Formats: sequence, structure tokens, C-alpha cells
Amino acid sequence: MATVSSAALAERGGTTAAQVRKDLSYLGSFGKRGLGYSVPELTQVLRRVLGLDSTWRVALVGAGRIGTALFEYEPFRKRGFAITTVVDSDPAKVGSRMGNVVVRGDDEMEQALRESGTELVILAVPAPVAQNVADRAVAAGVKAILNFAPAQLRVPVDVTLGNVSMLLELEGLSYALARGKKG
Amino acid sequence: MATVSSAALAERGGTTAAQVRKDLSYLGSFGKRGLGYSVPELTQVLRRVLGLDSTWRVALVGAGRIGTALFEYEPFRKRGFAITTVVDSDPAKVGSRMGNVVVRGDDEMEQALRESGTELVILAVPAPVAQNVADRAVAAGVKAILNFAPAQLRVPVDVTLGNVSMLLELEGLSYALARGKKG
Repeated sequence: MATVSSAALAERGGTTAAQVRKDLSYLGSFGKRGLGYSVPELTQVLRRVLGLDSTWRVALVGAGRIGTALFEYEPFRKRGFAITTVVDSDPAKVGSRMGNVVVRGDDEMEQALRESGTELVILAVPAPVAQNVADRAVAAGVKAILNFAPAQLRVPVDVTLGNVSMLLELEGLSYALARGKKG
Repeated sequence: MATVSSAALAERGGTTAAQVRKDLSYLGSFGKRGLGYSVPELTQVLRRVLGLDSTWRVALVGAGRIGTALFEYEPFRKRGFAITTVVDSDPAKVGSRMGNVVVRGDDEMEQALRESGTELVILAVPAPVAQNVADRAVAAGVKAILNFAPAQLRVPVDVTLGNVSMLLELEGLSYALARGKKG
């Protein structure tokens, strides 16, 4: 049986073996002293805790360059996040295909989200329209939003918001470089 | 003169006016009670602090779907982060043009980074090769890396690492959805 030690997990995660053991102890007692963790068992437990054993209905709103790249982003697919609904406001894109998915128009967004029972929206629209699109998605029943627009969104408490702030990260590096130059 | 109040800034940033005044007080005393902040002055101070008044030499390593989307990402360009070097390992891409930039081969990476005096690398390569590419970039003098690969990278203490973890964010939302279903 394939096993992995807390030390090996710590090495991969950039932490300590003690921290790994402590963290995993919250999920149940399934490690064995001297033997480590069963890889299949650990995988199963982690997948369950993270909700990765469920299939979430994911929609992409905004099929521009970033959106298109995300649609085809291999790590998303490998983890089971398949995008089954795509919405864009560009009439030239509406009705075209991305993989097996037909792009829907912005005016059909609420209908498309409801029909597909979408729970999670990947928001890849320009910053000035992001809040409005998020509000409409929430009104259509979406419970989680992954926002790629460089905008600070507000969502109701029962909706989970994740932000991928490429611009903020880049500005953070710029700040570090500027300080490094001075120091 | 255009001014902005701490209350208006707080509204935009999702914080309180008191917090805005406190934070900005660290940068000098340039707000005026009852008048607020001069927008040009505040912009200039923030740009200087964030290093946005400098021009950083930025290279993109990995010209796949994500990399290409980032190359053309409007918010980067608007803030002055122009990518002037592109490296890819695909021989079919080497020598082709992205905008005004000629794509260099992976075997020329160190040379391309040194020639251009690159300070900041945007790393958009597959996870399994990300650490190796990062090590080589650091050896070539790069001082900041923005990593898009779903991999935990290690860099020397004098190098700044930023991570854009699209997969981690999506898994975080999956976790929240799974908990919401149970609750």
C-alpha cells in the first residue's frame, strides 16, 4: 500500500512535519505512527473535505482572453472543475462554440445560470462592469464567485467570493522591488 | 483642485475612513482636515511608494494560453508593466512575434533575461517545471517572480515571490460550497 510520511508532505508544502500531523489530525485519526498516511485514504479524505468529490456546476462569464485561457486551463479540468456554461456580451461570440459549450449572450445570463443550476461563476469581465454582473449572478442563485477583475466586489454573506488579483500581486512585487532598490 | 475624502476612499476600498486616514498617515501628512486629499498628490505619493513610478523590466516565461492572455492583459499595460521579453520552450513559437516582442527559446532564457536586464519574471509554465525555471531565472539575476503555476516555489530571501493561485482559489470556493451544503 502506498504511504506518505508527514515529513514528505511537509517538504512538499513548505511547512514542518509536526504542523502537517496537527493539521491532518483535525480530519480524523488515519495516520499510523512509523507508517505515515495511506495515500488513497488521505486523498479521499482531502477530496471530501475540499468538496472535490462533488461536481460543481461552473459558468464562465466573460469569454475574453483571460476567460478563454481559463476555459482551457488544464489544472481546472484535472480537478474536475468543468465549465458547462459560458456567457459573453460580444454579439460576435454569442452562439459560437468553446469546446462543447455554446456561448450565451449577456441578456440571457440569468436564464443560462438558472437553467444550468450554476453554483459557481468564474468572473472574467472588465473591472467597471464586474459588480453589476456579480449582483445579477447572485440574484440568479449563484453561491460562489471567483473574480478575476481588478475590482473589490461586494456579495451577500451567504455567497463566497474568491479573488485572483493578478494586478495586485504584480503591484506588490513592484513595491518590493522599489524597496529593494532603496535599501 | 480635485480632492477625495477619506470616507470616499474607504467606500471604494471596503474599509473605514479612520483606517484610511491612519494608513495614509504613514506616508506623510498630506491630507487636509475638512478638505480631504489632493488627488494628484495622493496619486503621486502612492505611485512612488508602490514603485509604479519606476519602469520594471518584465519578462514572460511560458507563452501558452495563460501567458499569452497575460501578455495582452490590459490592466498590466495600463499600470506600466510592459512585457519586453518572452521565452517559450515550444520550437514552433520561438522566433515568432507577440506584439513587438520576438519569442526566445528556453535554451536562450538566461541570455535573454540578462540582455534585457529583466528584474521581474511572470512565470506561466506547467507546475512540474516551475521550480527549475524559477531557479534558472534567479541565477540570471531576476529579483521578483510572479508565479502562475500551481506549485509551491522556493526562492532565495533576496528574491520576492508572488503567487497567483487560480486553482487554490477555486478549491477554496469548492470547500465553501461543500460546507454550505452540509450546513
